[in-house]
Amino acid sequence: MNAPLKIGIAGLGTVGAAVFQLLEDNAGLLGARLQRPVTVTAVSARDKRKNRGIDVSKVKWHDDPVALADDADVDVVVELMGGAQGAAFDLVKKSLAAGKHVVTANKALLAARSGEILDLLKNSKGTLSYEAAAAGGIPVIKTLREGLAANNINAVYGILNGTCNFILSQMRSTGRDFPDVLKEAQDKGYAEADPAFDIDGIDAAHKLSILSGLAFGCAPDPGAVRTQGIREITSEDIAFAGELGYRIKLLGIARRTPRGIEQSVAPCLVPTSIPMAHIDGAENAVCIDGGHAGKILLTGAGAGGNATASAVVADIADIARGCADLPLLGVADPQKLESADINARTGSYFLRLTVLDEPGVIADVSAILRDCNVSLESILQRGHAPNQPVPVILTSHETLEGDMLAAAAQIGKLKSSVEPPHLMRIETFESGYVS
Amino acid sequence: MNAPLKIGIAGLGTVGAAVFQLLEDNAGLLGARLQRPVTVTAVSARDKRKNRGIDVSKVKWHDDPVALADDADVDVVVELMGGAQGAAFDLVKKSLAAGKHVVTANKALLAARSGEILDLLKNSKGTLSYEAAAAGGIPVIKTLREGLAANNINAVYGILNGTCNFILSQMRSTGRDFPDVLKEAQDKGYAEADPAFDIDGIDAAHKLSILSGLAFGCAPDPGAVRTQGIREITSEDIAFAGELGYRIKLLGIARRTPRGIEQSVAPCLVPTSIPMAHIDGAENAVCIDGGHAGKILLTGAGAGGNATASAVVADIADIARGCADLPLLGVADPQKLESADINARTGSYFLRLTVLDEPGVIADVSAILRDCNVSLESILQRGHAPNQPVPVILTSHETLEGDMLAAAAQIGKLKSSVEPPHLMRIETFESGYVS
Repeated sequence: MNAPLKIGIAGLGTVGAAVFQLLEDNAGLLGARLQRPVTVTAVSARDKRKNRGIDVSKVKWHDDPVALADDADVDVVVELMGGAQGAAFDLVKKSLAAGKHVVTANKALLAARSGEILDLLKNSKGTLSYEAAAAGGIPVIKTLREGLAANNINAVYGILNGTCNFILSQMRSTGRDFPDVLKEAQDKGYAEADPAFDIDGIDAAHKLSILSGLAFGCAPDPGAVRTQGIREITSEDIAFAGELGYRIKLLGIARRTPRGIEQSVAPCLVPTSIPMAHIDGAENAVCIDGGHAGKILLTGAGAGGNATASAVVADIADIARGCADLPLLGVADPQKLESADINARTGSYFLRLTVLDEPGVIADVSAILRDCNVSLESILQRGHAPNQPVPVILTSHETLEGDMLAAAAQIGKLKSSVEPPHLMRIETFESGYVS
Repeated sequence: MNAPLKIGIAGLGTVGAAVFQLLEDNAGLLGARLQRPVTVTAVSARDKRKNRGIDVSKVKWHDDPVALADDADVDVVVELMGGAQGAAFDLVKKSLAAGKHVVTANKALLAARSGEILDLLKNSKGTLSYEAAAAGGIPVIKTLREGLAANNINAVYGILNGTCNFILSQMRSTGRDFPDVLKEAQDKGYAEADPAFDIDGIDAAHKLSILSGLAFGCAPDPGAVRTQGIREITSEDIAFAGELGYRIKLLGIARRTPRGIEQSVAPCLVPTSIPMAHIDGAENAVCIDGGHAGKILLTGAGAGGNATASAVVADIADIARGCADLPLLGVADPQKLESADINARTGSYFLRLTVLDEPGVIADVSAILRDCNVSLESILQRGHAPNQPVPVILTSHETLEGDMLAAAAQIGKLKSSVEPPHLMRIETFESGYVS
């Protein structure tokens, strides 16, 4: 048996406490798998006396997390505090400078500061691993970087935010509206009191930029992700989509095009014939479209203490085996991100209008679509209520996203339009994809 | 840049030629990812002059594959000949004895001879990798052994044979019967002229035993897998299952129970509410039920030259990074398989009878079920044709598999029974699973 690998954990929230407990519960199994014991030697959190359901009395306590970087009894610093600034970054910086290995679940840090981390790694004997930063318990970083190492990746996309997927699944199964289901999600702890980070797609954009950076060998840039959330989705949208054979999912999509890397987070209509449509509840799903491997779909828990702890400990296991020294962004020399204008995307669209039921409205709408080069596939007015607002659902043939956006904006300015049009993509993952 | 890793390929069939081509096509990308060139230096196949669409003129040719083991210009021997006996095993044995690394896609070899391979590895500086031997292009070995290293696995199960899944998907979407669709599969090259190995579940049992061995740290034993194929499935079964909210999939299932490891390959009814039901065509899907990570589902191409080549080259990439030295079966000291009697499984069942439409038949059937402790959930007779054969569909509540088999056997002996009853499990992956 080799010398133990000594772990210091910074942050003992849900994930930190779960990592601590997992390493204790499965110590024997890990020893048998890694041929080396893994032991927590030190921890740091805000309040030493708080009851976390774990016994930290036998490990060293640091009030200052950054002190873990100087602790000679720590080989691996596990950073679970979160945030791109402050103590989390200081700890990563000092730990790498001290030649320690770092494992982090910090999406914001990776998405915002991978350039700085690359520089820190150049001068360090340590490594930085981040399996838990992309899709919780789903080993997607390992799959992209190792399992599919042979592939020139075409696209990586999926359901990257469990809160949004829970809300959309509940809306569909119960027919209830967004505000009502959001409140339920908040009561159940699936959504924060301030839900914007999740429901406006920002969390998904962070994760997508990390996956995209690794898939295409360039520094993550969440600012290059066109991001739209799920606030505007109504129970009507979900019902109409269902009638057309689709479910609505908030998808992060990054794909290689001849124009560069196209990245977006947006609610999309997905055909019920594909597995992605059936990923319900707080689950995540990531599809990697590899050149040779074809499409590999991974699904599982994208959050939660135990699932995220599983990913953190997988990184620790790689360090224990001396196999964590992979290029941070997949290749030795990451390139600058060449971002493609997503207005040049071609595909089909779903557009819900709320217009007054009066003569000539459909003619006005049709004329705008024609002038914007949008070819209609179907148009459906529901109900008949003279001079009252009624929903009208349009679906388009293949069209440019820019043209579709222009048409929606013009339709929104019609006198008969009583609510802003709601535009969503129809994503079949066939048309316009490289493979 | 480090020294090149030199590859020798034994077997230039579909997969061998695809590996050769992939290493050429993505040489630059692999170099950037691995910081080391990967170069094919030697090959061996039966007929040197056969046109395989690849240019082997610049590499060394061996008529005898086993000669690759002695070739000083080969660091890694890629064994793609197949078969548990003969040249494949000789090559693996001599290569390991010579301290070379071995990569293989050989399911039969792994399933039958992992004990011998373990002994060979003990005295070798080389390693043996087999990502391509379980589910083609899906990186399930890496996920089980590394990505989910922290987890005490509860179960591993899924769609492990693309031929069967293609046939079942076609039967469902077209309503055609088994012999007709089998012929189509043979014409399209999805099924062999002698299809028994696929359609009788033997291939799936090999793969399941490999996955099970790794998940539970014991030597694979295909003989311990209760194996049932898809020959008996009719278009009626598929239609009735659909009406009840299920699809029929040939599933390999290995799970940990208090009685030991339970392993089976059998057609099962899967609820349409879960993604597994929507894996169609020649796709494979593997679900790993990890204690902490929860259920991780991986789907993708389970066969095909390019997808399998992707898995082979992933193994080569690990060798290039010096990270292939993992315990063959996941743990340092694999245990003997403790096999659980699958008759002790509890779950729900679907039973199709073909009986004469005459008074008293349902009473006879019901009495047998009662006497075998089987509690009925539903019973459905379709059509009315006095004294003619009609299908009767039964579904049970939770019951013992042994009781259900006994009941089906007795029902089959009734005078009114004109065909053997067809029994299938209803698998929701909830009841009876550890987590």
